[in-house]
Formats: sequence, structure tokens, C-alpha cells
Amino acid sequence: MRDLDAQETYLADRLGLALDLRDLVGSGPVPQGPYAPPYGVVGFGEGWWAAQLARDFAPEFTARGTQFVLEGGYDFGRAAGAGLYAALGQSEVVRLGFQENVEVEVPSHPLSAYRYLRFLLLATQQPEALARIDRALLLERERLRPEVSLDKNPAKFLAYTLLERTPLWVVPEHYPGLAQALQQTFARIGKSLSLTPPPSALEFFVTGLEARHEQGDPIAAVILGEGESQAYAQEILESRVDTLIELPEPEAEGTLAKALCYWYRIAWTSYYLALLYGVEPGDWEVLHNLRRAAG
Amino acid sequence: MRDLDAQETYLADRLGLALDLRDLVGSGPVPQGPYAPPYGVVGFGEGWWAAQLARDFAPEFTARGTQFVLEGGYDFGRAAGAGLYAALGQSEVVRLGFQENVEVEVPSHPLSAYRYLRFLLLATQQPEALARIDRALLLERERLRPEVSLDKNPAKFLAYTLLERTPLWVVPEHYPGLAQALQQTFARIGKSLSLTPPPSALEFFVTGLEARHEQGDPIAAVILGEGESQAYAQEILESRVDTLIELPEPEAEGTLAKALCYWYRIAWTSYYLALLYGVEPGDWEVLHNLRRAAG
Repeated sequence: MRDLDAQETYLADRLGLALDLRDLVGSGPVPQGPYAPPYGVVGFGEGWWAAQLARDFAPEFTARGTQFVLEGGYDFGRAAGAGLYAALGQSEVVRLGFQENVEVEVPSHPLSAYRYLRFLLLATQQPEALARIDRALLLERERLRPEVSLDKNPAKFLAYTLLERTPLWVVPEHYPGLAQALQQTFARIGKSLSLTPPPSALEFFVTGLEARHEQGDPIAAVILGEGESQAYAQEILESRVDTLIELPEPEAEGTLAKALCYWYRIAWTSYYLALLYGVEPGDWEVLHNLRRAAG
Repeated sequence: MRDLDAQETYLADRLGLALDLRDLVGSGPVPQGPYAPPYGVVGFGEGWWAAQLARDFAPEFTARGTQFVLEGGYDFGRAAGAGLYAALGQSEVVRLGFQENVEVEVPSHPLSAYRYLRFLLLATQQPEALARIDRALLLERERLRPEVSLDKNPAKFLAYTLLERTPLWVVPEHYPGLAQALQQTFARIGKSLSLTPPPSALEFFVTGLEARHEQGDPIAAVILGEGESQAYAQEILESRVDTLIELPEPEAEGTLAKALCYWYRIAWTSYYLALLYGVEPGDWEVLHNLRRAAG
């Protein structure tokens, strides 16, 4: 078993993802000038979660003002299609991503969701919402970074708990897209599969483990936050899964900041898990080659 | 190994789910009178997928006309909240589900999505859309029912292929909610877990199996339909999963009918899989008890 408090364990991080995790707050492009309201935000590929979080303050499409189109990743022409659609209105279309000819470059990265969202919050004149997120992420960072030893570091501890297990993300309904964002981050950094339940999840928890609960990888249910539905999930799952982990609600103001905090915790956890498996936590090389071949 | 062409295998179906699968077309409540347009459809619990499919022809909320609130399952007050919200407008609020005091009773059932959708299509005067679905489902039924032997029955064949494997549903983007609906049906009838990928799934496929692809249950990628993104998914996954299954596009007109066909196929497959595992395919007893305790 590798030791997350030993320096040699970090040699697997050849691309230096730890630095990107540490320096996440404040990273990414900033608006070069004002954008006219009202705003629309539509997202594809890597931009999907930031666009979903943006439902908090903007619809998908606007016919006036500024239409942001978050591209990134494989979109099979859907982002271009959305841009064309938006251009039929009178809005200014602003494309963000790493394809050619974007107005705002956001390089492909497992942590790019923060950077898309940060740009959007600045461009739509919501610096206080961004400040709430950044304050909360900096607080999390102080507990989760590599210099903090296992006995005080919840991300390291969670990584050991998830080793050789498959997480099942149990996320409160008022965090849209968060379970999928955790699943994606856990794959892109931790290089491992995890389960996201469907809507109406309690029926799924009751039935889904009935036929085969002795087989395959042990499941680790990761329950985020508290509340009535989380309590029922816990009651159902505790006799059905291998282990049950409760993640306390982050110290953060507002759903947006809390969602980003949960995601940041799992990003650090995925990082430590990759190290425990001895795999590279970064994914640029793989995805870059894939994009050159297929993109 | 149990034999799906032998009668004794069907003894595990004590609650007679095969009859519900066979007689699905035309089942469920019908409108007793006209409902005034425009229409809004919002869904919770078991009603979630029907409501999502209804985005094809109605928004979530309407302030005039008729507001349908699909309840069902645990909703922790969200359906009641939505009803109250809708009642603030001038629309007539019609509640469907199995809670007390609903206007239209739809009993809890693993196949209830069809019944919610059927009622909605009739209530919103779209009999031809329902007829397209029903024609397609009847065609599927002729290929999938128990009397059709394994060598001619794709659902039986798929059940054997998925035995002791974990499916990963690879669904084209233009079928919203279908992957989750398959996951839920596979749990409620097949009593087994399956994986749904996040948006921007290709990055997930490339990275998610890297650390642990030798461990745990073998993954069976189930690829629905064809197209550019499905071809890339197949190319990425074929070297990474244990087996790869291509489900051809159903003979059906329109996305709604095709979506229901895929779902019906997986419902039959889940039924056969439950029989192969020797578990009860129905789930009424379990869920009924759960609801009495917690609902």
C-alpha cells in the first residue's frame, strides 16, 4: 500500500496536477471588456456542468444581449449548431473553449468547470458570487492539500476508503449535475468508474443491489450532506453496501459555492486515489492524442 | 444455468410481471374529459421520465390551461410544492400518482412511465403520437415475449450476455433521460446495478477504466443506435470492456416511440435476467413495505 504522506508517492504525478489543484482559485481567462445583458449560457463537452450551474442566473438561450456558448471536448457539431441558432437572434455570440476560432480560450482540463464558471460570473457582473466560491475553495484547500497529513486530511482518508471500491454518489436533488460532475472528475483524475443513481433514487437503492449484492466490486455509498432524503438513502443503503461515507456539508454560502466545494473535495480525493493506484492523475496526453485522432 | 426456454424458470415470477409486460400497451388510466390547453407537465418520483419525455410537447409549468403534476414515489414534498406553485397561476392543477387525493390514480409500478406518458398524450390530444408508440411496442413484443425461443429472441439473448456483468448504457444525446430510465428499470426488474455515463462521455470512457480495468465485475457496454458519437464510443470502449453489445435502432417513427421501444426491450431483458438470477422480477412487496414505513 502506497503512503500518501511519503514524498515518493507523488512521483506518479508527472504532469503536476497537484499544482493545478492547489492554484485552481483565480485560474483561467478573465473578460476583457463588458458584455451586454441579458445573458444566455449553453454548454457542451467539458462545458456542460458550468452551463448547468449557470441555470442559477441565466437561461440557455437569449435572443438579445450576450449568448455564451461553452464548447470543449467532442460535441459532434452541436456547439456549432447552437452558435448558429443563437446567431439568428440579435445577441452577441461568445464562444469559449479549446476549438479553433473561439473568442475565449479555455484549455481542456479536468478542472475546467471552475474556469468556465469563473469567467461567466465575472462576465455577468457577479463578483460577489465568485468571491463566495473562492473563499470556500481556499478553506477546503487548507484541509486537503498534500502537506496536510492523513490524520487531518479528509481527502486522503477518503481516497484510502475508496481504494478497491466503487463509489455510488448520493447527492441531494438541489445540486443539479453534481453527481455526474463527481463521476466525471473521479474518472478523469482517479481513472476509475463510479455510479450515479437515476432520479427517484430510493427505489433504485432498494432494488438495484438485490440480485447480485455479493458479487463484483464492493460499493461505497458516498452520501453528501444531510436531510430527509439523505437519511432514507442511508437507512436503505447501510445494509446493502460495503461501506457508507457521509460527507458533511461544506462551510460555504449558497448552493453554487457548496456544489463547487464538494466537487473540489472529490477532485483532491481522485488525485490521491490515482497516486494510490500508481497511475498518472493528469489526462492531457491521452485526451490530446484522442482529439488529434478523432476530433 | 437456468433455461429461459423452460417453463419452470418462470416460477420465480410469482407476482406475474410477465403479464404486465405483455399487456403494457393500452394499460393505465384514460382522461375522463377534455383538459384546457396550454399544458405544463412537471414530474417527481416515478413520474420523472414521463415528465422529461413530455418536454417534447409541453414546458414544465404553465400559468394558464392545465398543469399536470406527476407524483409517485418519495418526493419529500416537492410534488406538493410544485402543485402549490402551479396553483398560484390560473391553470387547473391535475395531480397523477398513487398518493392520497390525486385526481388520476397511477399505481406504483416498474412500467408506470408508459402509463403516465399515455395519459398525457391522450389528455393533450395527441392520439397519433400514442399510436406510433403503441404500434412499435406491439412489434417489439412479438419478438421479445417468453413464447419466442432464445434463438429468435433478442431480449433473452441479451439477458444471457448481461449475466454476471455490469451494463454501461451508451445512449445517443437526443434521447434525454433514457440512460437513467434504463438504469432504473434494470434495477427495479433485473435487481441489478448498471452504469450511466456523465455528459461529455467520451472523456469518461477514455479515462474511467484506466486504473482498474482488470478488477471487479466485467463491464458490458450496451451501445444504442448508430451515428458518429456512437462509433467513437465503440472504438474507445472495445479495448476497455469485457463485451460490447450493439442494440439496433427500433422500427419506430419518431424519437418518443424509439425511446419507449429501447426501454421496453431493456424491461424484457431485465425480466429475463431476474429469472436467470432466480429472483422475483416484480417489486411491489418490497416497495409497498418501504412506503408504509417511510412514505
